[in-house]
Amino acid sequence: MAALNEFDVIQTFFHRAAPEGYVGVGDDCALFSVRPGYQLAVSTDTLIEGQHFFSDVDPYDLGHKSLAVNLSDLCAMGAEPKGCVLALALPQVDPQWLQAFSSGLHALAAQSNCPLIGGDTTRHPYAVTITLTIFGEVPITQALRRDLARAGDDIWITGTLGAADLALRYLTQRLPMDAERLEQTRSALERPLPPYAFAPHLLGHAHAAIDISDGFLQDLSHILTASHCGAQVSWADLPMHPALRGVAPALQQAAVLAGGDVFELCFTAPPTERAYLLDLAAQHQIRLTRIGTVVPEPGLVVVDASGQALNLPAQGGFDHFSA
Amino acid sequence: MAALNEFDVIQTFFHRAAPEGYVGVGDDCALFSVRPGYQLAVSTDTLIEGQHFFSDVDPYDLGHKSLAVNLSDLCAMGAEPKGCVLALALPQVDPQWLQAFSSGLHALAAQSNCPLIGGDTTRHPYAVTITLTIFGEVPITQALRRDLARAGDDIWITGTLGAADLALRYLTQRLPMDAERLEQTRSALERPLPPYAFAPHLLGHAHAAIDISDGFLQDLSHILTASHCGAQVSWADLPMHPALRGVAPALQQAAVLAGGDVFELCFTAPPTERAYLLDLAAQHQIRLTRIGTVVPEPGLVVVDASGQALNLPAQGGFDHFSA
Repeated sequence: MAALNEFDVIQTFFHRAAPEGYVGVGDDCALFSVRPGYQLAVSTDTLIEGQHFFSDVDPYDLGHKSLAVNLSDLCAMGAEPKGCVLALALPQVDPQWLQAFSSGLHALAAQSNCPLIGGDTTRHPYAVTITLTIFGEVPITQALRRDLARAGDDIWITGTLGAADLALRYLTQRLPMDAERLEQTRSALERPLPPYAFAPHLLGHAHAAIDISDGFLQDLSHILTASHCGAQVSWADLPMHPALRGVAPALQQAAVLAGGDVFELCFTAPPTERAYLLDLAAQHQIRLTRIGTVVPEPGLVVVDASGQALNLPAQGGFDHFSA
Repeated sequence: MAALNEFDVIQTFFHRAAPEGYVGVGDDCALFSVRPGYQLAVSTDTLIEGQHFFSDVDPYDLGHKSLAVNLSDLCAMGAEPKGCVLALALPQVDPQWLQAFSSGLHALAAQSNCPLIGGDTTRHPYAVTITLTIFGEVPITQALRRDLARAGDDIWITGTLGAADLALRYLTQRLPMDAERLEQTRSALERPLPPYAFAPHLLGHAHAAIDISDGFLQDLSHILTASHCGAQVSWADLPMHPALRGVAPALQQAAVLAGGDVFELCFTAPPTERAYLLDLAAQHQIRLTRIGTVVPEPGLVVVDASGQALNLPAQGGFDHFSA
């Protein structure tokens, strides 16, 4: 196969007919309209080979995840997906890899109504580097934010916690391999699916929201700091992934409380919304768990079944510049 | 100075108070509204250390250029700048470098009314990798496009050609150093300034447009291919940068016709618009030059003063995946 140049790569793997109402790949900019009464929500995230994913990860999953991590940010604002652009930098052009990567990306784009409408491809001397920027629509002034939690709110999370972190520990040899547990947790790490259809229905019902990307404790703390309040969370109520049953309690705590790459939603809502929320979750086949309460005093306390505060690790969560 | 973490980097160097009508840095997404009657134009571009810029480039200039290359894409659609998000991946946190980089970016953002409203910072194991995604507003259905050139249109370009390419040849030792010429051309390479205030006034007057990023011949060819027509261009009319006077004719041709990194605008417009365009350029202190004509037959011909077609290099322009 002859070497593909930049334009071939775009044409072969990333170009799709622009959906109605969009001008897509092929001009200097992509164009689209925002519905009257809505505003635009924008987020951008980078995934780097060797830093955020392994060189031998399934490229289909990587294409999926490149969009998923950004869909997760839209969820945190309650925005509906509208479209995305991809900046892809590659050490070499591998048609098989590109075919799988673009298929994974396009599949989730189609599923979530978030078409790929533009981008930039270029050579990277060292590492596959993927930056995807996503656009969503949200009714003006209605977006969920980090700073709107109120004392008395329930705290909810979607999905389960701990699986992605456990898989990562096996894959980086920080834990002795357990093939069965890796099998059970790997898709949480490599093919996360944020609740993009569920989240927009939280508008007008939830107060504050964030997606869990750096670790549950750290991300919930961002809500509490921005909202000038605190929280009491019940360890027993946290929806631990079933594959964590039977692992050492310290590892369970670390994975559930501080594990990153979760891409589920943490939000607060007044207790009057419980029935609505549980009903909504059932409609969307989303696991939704009430895990604690927002309190007026600053500080985040996780209590065990007997009401004792857990001794939390000083360093929860993920700092991208730590060694 | 203690090591800065990811959140410190954002807070210290990139956070600015969100302009009226925006929710900016500090939540999961940035939020803003698009004016009624307008649609959104979006573009994304990546700059990689060692690939698109030298490791020792002035970081202030690099911050400027990261935004400038994207402003250039908005110009090509006639869109007004609205805002941008930055994905920045760094091998290490160097506060002095970050201070200068962010200052250069914020300065051009303020000048062009294109505030930085969000982003992502992360560690890159090897190379500074900068992806900026820009948003502009353009009246619905009015955007300049590549596919709307018509036979009989004049072809225009802003600014001059060849300087950035010449500077790059000196800096990569592909030409023996000429300190004076490097001095005269270096700012074209390192601090390009696309005509962002001029371009939106082309709507309703120009037909097709593109920004010159990969090389004049290649970029004009994109217009011609998309518009199913050809062009005749006069070599003598091409606005060669004055620093190219006196260099070998073959080098002049290569730099002017195929040199990349120009970030000026090439557009077509009917001859009835000449007075309007020259007046508009004067108002904006933009150098604007009419360089040729769109013709019905496919093909791009550059003729010399005697009307003879130049023998054009087979490979004009820049392919990001070529060796």
